[in-house]
Amino acid sequence: MSGEIETLTKLLARLPGLGPRSARRAVLFLLKRREQLMLPLAEAMHAAAKAMKACRECGNYATEDPCPICTDARRDKTVMCVVEEVGDVWAFERSGAYRGLYHVLGGTLSALDGRGPEDLTLDKLVERCRPKVGDEGSVTEVILALDATVDGQTTAHYVSDRLQPLGIKVTRLAQGVPVGGELDYLDDGTLTTALKSRREV
Amino acid sequence: MSGEIETLTKLLARLPGLGPRSARRAVLFLLKRREQLMLPLAEAMHAAAKAMKACRECGNYATEDPCPICTDARRDKTVMCVVEEVGDVWAFERSGAYRGLYHVLGGTLSALDGRGPEDLTLDKLVERCRPKVGDEGSVTEVILALDATVDGQTTAHYVSDRLQPLGIKVTRLAQGVPVGGELDYLDDGTLTTALKSRREV
Repeated sequence: MSGEIETLTKLLARLPGLGPRSARRAVLFLLKRREQLMLPLAEAMHAAAKAMKACRECGNYATEDPCPICTDARRDKTVMCVVEEVGDVWAFERSGAYRGLYHVLGGTLSALDGRGPEDLTLDKLVERCRPKVGDEGSVTEVILALDATVDGQTTAHYVSDRLQPLGIKVTRLAQGVPVGGELDYLDDGTLTTALKSRREV
Repeated sequence: MSGEIETLTKLLARLPGLGPRSARRAVLFLLKRREQLMLPLAEAMHAAAKAMKACRECGNYATEDPCPICTDARRDKTVMCVVEEVGDVWAFERSGAYRGLYHVLGGTLSALDGRGPEDLTLDKLVERCRPKVGDEGSVTEVILALDATVDGQTTAHYVSDRLQPLGIKVTRLAQGVPVGGELDYLDDGTLTTALKSRREV
């Protein structure tokens, strides 16, 4: 293996879901498709790295700053959805079910990984949610869309505490049986929650 | 998702071992590490695509053509190891157990995938193995190191037939219990082969 290939393999192996072996396979795959895939991929990666910026308002990645979601006049600026990562913004946008603003925290609080409140964009969130003069376009509801994990829920509690002085309605996503989910494959926790939060039909 | 990210995700998703979801995760991972990983990776990919050539002799990828293995004066030029893919050359080189030449076929014969002898570098192999004037540096042994699959073995038979008129010794890799292999996890075929090819200790 020559130096060029070794460098490329090592860098590729750092991607999530790839290890040294699969990176090697990917490099061979690329070398066989130089014009159709390898050069376009290198070009696309370079272009994205140069063009994409983190939005100074919400933290989403976009070519503009502030991002198109923050500047879109048709979006509801009174609702703010708090998520952990940019990937969550993409997931909501794919679903098409949400037309408000976003705020990317940049992770969760985690005692284990040593991530405290100062590592998240919490101050920015509080600033964005602070009632504006004349109440024009102020945020009236914050939706906490954090992972249903221990870290996610701890973070949700913390964020909710930080927002309380502002007197804004804070909600969180419903927990229950996922659409298409089969009951006998569900874990006990989900089943218990779904039962407790049952609704009249 | 902006256009740049979509393009990058689609191209990444074509790599073996990655799908649309893992490609998206990889893109987010990259965007978070722009300077340390994303730009170096784009650069390494571009450099490798530009620098690597398929060796006109053996088919191995290298920055020089013929490749360093073909031109290495210390290597044994009387033995030629026939493999399917460049990855196999790398595997042998990693093992350090082989010091002869290689010949990359570029695949196997496959009736199912419609790959015939003309799709492989068979003519080149026969040409390379043809006895040279004065017998100086002629190949005396061809090792067929092809996969122990149906396609691999069919190809081995075919290659061996093509080489027969040259009167060269043709060998193949031993089949048997892999080093570190546990007997009760082995398939019947391997166990039968290992028993048939048993050797005195």
